[in-house]
Amino acid sequence: MSLKTPRTRLQRLPKRGAHDFATIAAILDEGFFCHVGFVAGGQPYVIPTGYGRKGRTLYIHGSFASRMLNELATGIPMCLTVTLVDGLVLARSGFHSSVNYRSVVVLGTATVVEGEEKGAALEIISEQILPGRWADIRWPTRKELKATLVLKLRINEASAKIRTGPPNDDEKDYALKCWAGVVPLQLTPGKPVADSRLPRDVPVPEYARKFPRQGRKK
Amino acid sequence: MSLKTPRTRLQRLPKRGAHDFATIAAILDEGFFCHVGFVAGGQPYVIPTGYGRKGRTLYIHGSFASRMLNELATGIPMCLTVTLVDGLVLARSGFHSSVNYRSVVVLGTATVVEGEEKGAALEIISEQILPGRWADIRWPTRKELKATLVLKLRINEASAKIRTGPPNDDEKDYALKCWAGVVPLQLTPGKPVADSRLPRDVPVPEYARKFPRQGRKK
Repeated sequence: MSLKTPRTRLQRLPKRGAHDFATIAAILDEGFFCHVGFVAGGQPYVIPTGYGRKGRTLYIHGSFASRMLNELATGIPMCLTVTLVDGLVLARSGFHSSVNYRSVVVLGTATVVEGEEKGAALEIISEQILPGRWADIRWPTRKELKATLVLKLRINEASAKIRTGPPNDDEKDYALKCWAGVVPLQLTPGKPVADSRLPRDVPVPEYARKFPRQGRKK
Repeated sequence: MSLKTPRTRLQRLPKRGAHDFATIAAILDEGFFCHVGFVAGGQPYVIPTGYGRKGRTLYIHGSFASRMLNELATGIPMCLTVTLVDGLVLARSGFHSSVNYRSVVVLGTATVVEGEEKGAALEIISEQILPGRWADIRWPTRKELKATLVLKLRINEASAKIRTGPPNDDEKDYALKCWAGVVPLQLTPGKPVADSRLPRDVPVPEYARKFPRQGRKK
């Protein structure tokens, strides 16, 4: 199933692009925060926020007072972009130096999530960020649910862009005595820092050590 | 010097916000890739790309054929957002679970960089990504410069948003036997992977091991 449209067709380096749902879903599943674009007063804004995916649906959430969410809730066009940075590509020239990354751009309009789907969506977002956590925490109260705005965006129109592998240098530059290759990068967890009010006999849960998430499957 | 305007005033949780240039510059200097927002045909797009900062100026670059850069070069409103994800905040409830992060949003319009500033801008972008690299690589040829579009955005209107520290749980939730605290996250380098065509006697440069960049100063 292709999510390609005239708007998500890749104009630059289309060989690095993909429009199939499986590729797009795999990138979305490895990330947990996105950058959402919307327009207000003629000005585009790009705001980072968490997200969750289930099937063809992406969920985002925030305060009922969030300007971004309230703007999006009116059904204006939005863009949701997820980028995973995989490494620095050290070519022998500036021109061919690059970054290895995988990104997904989803276009569409959001709708407000209500009723039972609202609590389920919050679980999906939580599990996207840290799988396993939801079972351990206190779930939202009715008051908290009321204070939270949840939106969903269907993945109908999207593209992925991927760069992998070593530098692609000009043939003559391979003769240069300049180190070249890739420095892999990964969002990596440090040692968990317990809250100062946590009783000493509560162990760090396994899921808090489960990063890195690379290659994780749903 | 404040970069606060009605458009960069923080409407949600203003206590987490800042508008002073020093705070904004420090966040920008720790990152090296941003998400750029622009509007084409009424649709907002959010695209990841590298950037560099010098003083009050941000530079981005790409192919002369880049749709994004060509749109921005016409002087349409843009948004450039940089987000550093510092950790997962594991609160005792879903409602107070969060992410520690530092982000900067810069609004404005871009102008095309030409002449001597163009080569200098490419060095600034390269040094932002990997300080020290520029001295080792082959610099751009006239033909490469011609094939590259460089834009600059002045940092005149901007905001920072920062969340740090442990979870802020509801008082009664502190009694729960649920692990709570922070899992720090950092973009961390793996072992450099030499290009297959690199002679064996070329050592890995020091700067390729210098990540993590946290706390780096210009």
